[in-house]
Amino acid sequence: MVTNGMADADDTHEMIADMGRCARSAAGQLANMPTATKAAALRAAAGAMRKATPAILEANARDMAAGKARGLSAALLDRLRLDEARVESAAAGVEAVAGLADPVGQVIDRSTRPNGLQLARVRVPIGVIGIIYESRPNVTADAAALCVMAGNAVILRGGSEAVHSNRAIHAALVAGFAAAELPADAVQLVPTTDRAAVGAMLTADGVIDLIVPRGGKSLVARVQAEARVPVLAHLDGINHVYVDGSADAAMAERVVLDAKMRRTGICGAMETLLIDRHFAEAPALIAALQARGCDVRGDATARALVPDLPAASVEDWDTEYLDAVASVAIVDGVDAAMTHIARHGSHHTDAIVAEDGEVAERFLSGVDSAIVLWNASTQFADGGEFGLGAEIGIATGRLHARGPVALEGLTTYKWVGRGTGQVRG
Amino acid sequence: MVTNGMADADDTHEMIADMGRCARSAAGQLANMPTATKAAALRAAAGAMRKATPAILEANARDMAAGKARGLSAALLDRLRLDEARVESAAAGVEAVAGLADPVGQVIDRSTRPNGLQLARVRVPIGVIGIIYESRPNVTADAAALCVMAGNAVILRGGSEAVHSNRAIHAALVAGFAAAELPADAVQLVPTTDRAAVGAMLTADGVIDLIVPRGGKSLVARVQAEARVPVLAHLDGINHVYVDGSADAAMAERVVLDAKMRRTGICGAMETLLIDRHFAEAPALIAALQARGCDVRGDATARALVPDLPAASVEDWDTEYLDAVASVAIVDGVDAAMTHIARHGSHHTDAIVAEDGEVAERFLSGVDSAIVLWNASTQFADGGEFGLGAEIGIATGRLHARGPVALEGLTTYKWVGRGTGQVRG
Repeated sequence: MVTNGMADADDTHEMIADMGRCARSAAGQLANMPTATKAAALRAAAGAMRKATPAILEANARDMAAGKARGLSAALLDRLRLDEARVESAAAGVEAVAGLADPVGQVIDRSTRPNGLQLARVRVPIGVIGIIYESRPNVTADAAALCVMAGNAVILRGGSEAVHSNRAIHAALVAGFAAAELPADAVQLVPTTDRAAVGAMLTADGVIDLIVPRGGKSLVARVQAEARVPVLAHLDGINHVYVDGSADAAMAERVVLDAKMRRTGICGAMETLLIDRHFAEAPALIAALQARGCDVRGDATARALVPDLPAASVEDWDTEYLDAVASVAIVDGVDAAMTHIARHGSHHTDAIVAEDGEVAERFLSGVDSAIVLWNASTQFADGGEFGLGAEIGIATGRLHARGPVALEGLTTYKWVGRGTGQVRG
Repeated sequence: MVTNGMADADDTHEMIADMGRCARSAAGQLANMPTATKAAALRAAAGAMRKATPAILEANARDMAAGKARGLSAALLDRLRLDEARVESAAAGVEAVAGLADPVGQVIDRSTRPNGLQLARVRVPIGVIGIIYESRPNVTADAAALCVMAGNAVILRGGSEAVHSNRAIHAALVAGFAAAELPADAVQLVPTTDRAAVGAMLTADGVIDLIVPRGGKSLVARVQAEARVPVLAHLDGINHVYVDGSADAAMAERVVLDAKMRRTGICGAMETLLIDRHFAEAPALIAALQARGCDVRGDATARALVPDLPAASVEDWDTEYLDAVASVAIVDGVDAAMTHIARHGSHHTDAIVAEDGEVAERFLSGVDSAIVLWNASTQFADGGEFGLGAEIGIATGRLHARGPVALEGLTTYKWVGRGTGQVRG
């Protein structure tokens, strides 16, 4: 049994290595491909998806039936489910990426050295990207489109529950690419759904240049724990809104309600509300959240202000609810708020509501998060809202790219020097 | 014994975690420190180093005596050795960093969204940097200066052979910083020299944000193999010069001799010379290398051109000699050269000598290395030569920063949004 197990693991590693070699070769061609060619290929892929809608829906029906039989939750089934509108939306998303500015070849900066050597830093693709995702089959299309538009080859590993849907979408993409002279290995789908393939991708340093996990906390946690390949991801979005004493009460209520209740299940949702003890309308703000159906849990000071407010436990401050729940603490000004965020935050998105600009700037420079906002809802944490046209994800790590990551984050750069025979001598 | 060993490992991890907490706190202060304060602290540190020259030299004499007793090689002893000029040079290097443009607070780009939300990407420090280095005690000063100027706290782990020198330089730096109101924990030196501390740093993800190894291949290989923390480094500099058929022969000889022979032991040195079969002066070029004392080893075609030329083995093409040795292959034009580089190169620095601009541009875009050069020596691969003022190292990875890394590479960015009460609604 051990021998078999090892042979299987070796086979899986060899499979990923083989896919990596094909991807590397495709990446070499993609790296210098004109923008128009890549865009045409994405438009062709969108067209092929539309044409393949019946086949995609048929495949999806098989996944849905299997999912129901396996007892998947209603939420998972909803993520898995495709209909004509969702396929059209995914195809339109691929077309939208085709219309984005191509980062490849952009000159970041240039200089001429005293010896006449002309230097430029030029954006180039990263190379081979691995996407590991769950349930939502539309990721097959949107992640592939972003990677390819930025000149990268991509290896997709979708969840087993969406295997037929993913294969149908992948087949459509590849058919579209083939019509547009894109190398067939630009977008590969890992053919097996066993979990060993994930492990093989995570340890494929030198084969895969970057892993982007798209899915729930357990997937992202596994990826971050096991990966030897660099990862762009976020694990938690424990986001705060701090309402300063100088805040306009109506604006505070509008921003806080949106940050918490617009959509409670997204990573940009507020989880903890910090209220300055000088903000007089704290009880009304808490009541407004409750009136919208939010389960608010307070610290001792908040509970003194609002009778019958449930108590927050010590765990509450470190919890990403992703639900209509919020913890509320009354703090002593912006410095106390920043101390709370430094201790409990997840470096994702934090906001201040304040009329006092000095206090706001202190917060914006002092809070160490990928996104910091003044007088705006944390739910703006999104590549589309930031004008990037799309996003492959939001990164809370500190290197390479932070916050919403789109085409630029899927590139790196190289130094190009043009001389006339210069030597150091 | 096992229990003791585990206790020791736990102690070491706890020590690094403690240093990390102190560093994180110092980093919080450094992140928002005015440029002038950081620069003044570095100048004070340089002054303190000069004042402490006798103590530094006395400490270095102890390291040198111990190194000789341990039988260190002449090359290692030379790297370890300090004298007044070398201390002065290190102090001047710290001052030079104080004069560089501060990347912290620089706005990378800004936009105003249709809803009026003003967005900017602003450079911020990475946080806590770990430097793991060998022999050369001047790294203590120059790495510390670069990290601090970019607003980071740094944990230094020098080699055991330089322990007294490093402690003396560190003491001087800290004395200078103290006089200039820099937090004492901005620059910490790991007090122990046992190798477990390196392992503890490499696995301290969340505690240390970035590791930069400075040293020989075995150190860098260990760091890259074991690190859970992101690493900026290069393992090999297997650099190529391709001489195209269109090259000016005199320029080719000048560039090749400089690339190979100016300094043979640096990472930017050429190791393999690729000559287009249409370049008529190949024998003269090889003879010029030999005349300068280079041990040239050729492929079959080169040996047919140059009688008595020793044969290159299959290993030669993958070898970083760091010595007066070069392998030479005759190739069929720029595409064959690029194929050779893709197969044997290390993504560090590769150059073409050519008068044909189309061929040169083909090489510059097709070679996937951190630095690509046209008609210039590979020995320009250096932060100072690139106008960065200094460098913490050269990176051949694909993420975050490539090529020479200086202050900008020691920063990341955050998204700062300023609104007027915007909600997504």
